[in-house]
Amino acid sequence: MNVLCPLPNTSHERVLMAHGGGGRLMRRLISDLLAPALAQPELDVCHDAALLSLPGLGGPRLAFTTDSYVVQPLFFPGGDIGSLAVNGTVNDLAMRGARPLYLSCALILEEGLPLDDLRRVASSLGASARAAGVALVTGDTKVVEKGKGDGLFVNTAGIGLLEHDVLLGPAQVRAGDRLLVSGDIGRHGIAILSARESLGFESSLESDCAPLWTPVQALLAAGVRLRCLRDLTRGGLGAALNEIALDGQVALRVDEAAVPVRADVSSACELLGLDAFYVANEGRFLAVVAPDDEQPALAVLRRHAVSAGTAAIGTVHAAPRGLVSVHTRLGSARVLDLPSGEQLPRIC
Amino acid sequence: MNVLCPLPNTSHERVLMAHGGGGRLMRRLISDLLAPALAQPELDVCHDAALLSLPGLGGPRLAFTTDSYVVQPLFFPGGDIGSLAVNGTVNDLAMRGARPLYLSCALILEEGLPLDDLRRVASSLGASARAAGVALVTGDTKVVEKGKGDGLFVNTAGIGLLEHDVLLGPAQVRAGDRLLVSGDIGRHGIAILSARESLGFESSLESDCAPLWTPVQALLAAGVRLRCLRDLTRGGLGAALNEIALDGQVALRVDEAAVPVRADVSSACELLGLDAFYVANEGRFLAVVAPDDEQPALAVLRRHAVSAGTAAIGTVHAAPRGLVSVHTRLGSARVLDLPSGEQLPRIC
Repeated sequence: MNVLCPLPNTSHERVLMAHGGGGRLMRRLISDLLAPALAQPELDVCHDAALLSLPGLGGPRLAFTTDSYVVQPLFFPGGDIGSLAVNGTVNDLAMRGARPLYLSCALILEEGLPLDDLRRVASSLGASARAAGVALVTGDTKVVEKGKGDGLFVNTAGIGLLEHDVLLGPAQVRAGDRLLVSGDIGRHGIAILSARESLGFESSLESDCAPLWTPVQALLAAGVRLRCLRDLTRGGLGAALNEIALDGQVALRVDEAAVPVRADVSSACELLGLDAFYVANEGRFLAVVAPDDEQPALAVLRRHAVSAGTAAIGTVHAAPRGLVSVHTRLGSARVLDLPSGEQLPRIC
Repeated sequence: MNVLCPLPNTSHERVLMAHGGGGRLMRRLISDLLAPALAQPELDVCHDAALLSLPGLGGPRLAFTTDSYVVQPLFFPGGDIGSLAVNGTVNDLAMRGARPLYLSCALILEEGLPLDDLRRVASSLGASARAAGVALVTGDTKVVEKGKGDGLFVNTAGIGLLEHDVLLGPAQVRAGDRLLVSGDIGRHGIAILSARESLGFESSLESDCAPLWTPVQALLAAGVRLRCLRDLTRGGLGAALNEIALDGQVALRVDEAAVPVRADVSSACELLGLDAFYVANEGRFLAVVAPDDEQPALAVLRRHAVSAGTAAIGTVHAAPRGLVSVHTRLGSARVLDLPSGEQLPRIC
């Protein structure tokens, strides 16, 4: 779905696929329906994880997040629903600057799921947790009748610890700050699509699914002045940029030529009519850093394999507030809007 | 499913509905397949919640739990999937003796779900959280295609705080200890079945769905020597008794006449061929207390509306280990086995 489509809105009577896409419709569903109905003053809808205080721990030191994973197919090049469920939640904690410590894991199984598939996913959950340095400590298993689920849904919730006093979030972003993206974009979405549709792209295109705490920790340890971190999942880089522009009330200008996109991803996007800016990633993040800290941040990030391809892609401006613009290779400028839904459903 | 059925086992190639029933098959799925594949030394499969330590908080002070809710129908007499999702997770924390503080909430919506139903569930989630004294702090929304879900699945994970040094669990249970059940059993399961099958029982039979932290807190505050707490959800009182007998390696003897069952529930069970011992509850728990503390515990519990109907139903013995026996109204004894699956699927 591109930005020229007329936007449906939440006055529709029923849930649409696009409500789950991480774009404008999802934001509306949350802000106009869910948040008012829940009426929870402590509900944090602007961040990847909530920061909590606990008696005895001092100020807000605990980060808490949750995600359900409904990706199809369950297994894809470079990962599966298990590695996704661990890394996605680990990354939501990392994006708040919190060290991921503990995960819960709840499974909704569809009657008829091969036990071998379940075993494979469980092995992947365990191996991914060990690789990310977190412990799976509690779980749940439910079963629904055949035709009432889709093989396997996984929910993970995560607890992390904030070990510093750096405030991160769209509200910290200032004019002049620099935008870094931690590597090439679009691989996860294209890998899923390729597996789903048996497109059989000849290249060895794999999802970028990976845990991101290590490079974030390195940035914090190096004293880089970080303003905001955002992983580039549903809605891709385009949605992340728009969320920061909207929630931080700033303008972001991106240089298209500076955004790393692999040639095979770029060709696949062209072939399929997709915009790589909106394709989901599962091991990439956007870091907004203070103007003078761009070079140190690049140096730190490029030392870690998962962020070796980090690139500076643009700058924060004061106005027009809420707007993301892209300077194209052709020399023109275009507005990069918040997507309405998601180009590819059930990507995570 | 009763105990005389031949038991299928996990060598079956595919997931069965009975794998989700909280009985023997689910225990095997977890112990024989999931736990070995996950290979997580900190995974706690014997309790409703994991106890965690955090730097700065001293010993294990944090309780963490998760449950997905797949109940059908979404709305039923005395509750809905929202109140269930809050109270179920609050109760899992309470059963570890932890004060429930924070919940996450992740929704898996099926395309086509009426937004009014979603609004109603969200209102119920919010109201139930306020009633239970917890805050919903973080969430997630996913959408799956029509026919790949069942209206709405809800996951909640919960964080609680342990404010005392009382060890609770099957390992603490000793011969001579007394068994208390916090009220009449079987109402949740029968209410769901009635709503599902439009059986239209004439009585005003409602689910017992309720938060249980208040009576647990009162027991702790009164200094009652608690050994183990267990809420009576999937598999009902029968499964809870068996889990304690198996995990604590003790024998439990229950006096059937002392177990409170409402007449309408009893009639419904008889009509439907169900055993009330195995019917799920969502606002009832079993407390194992030291022999001399039965009377103080009864007095404390009966002061709170949610546990006003507490009854002493039996005693712990040293042998035969792992066995639960029921002394029937007719004067005979029967073995109360761990159920294989669940009499009523998708009860929570």
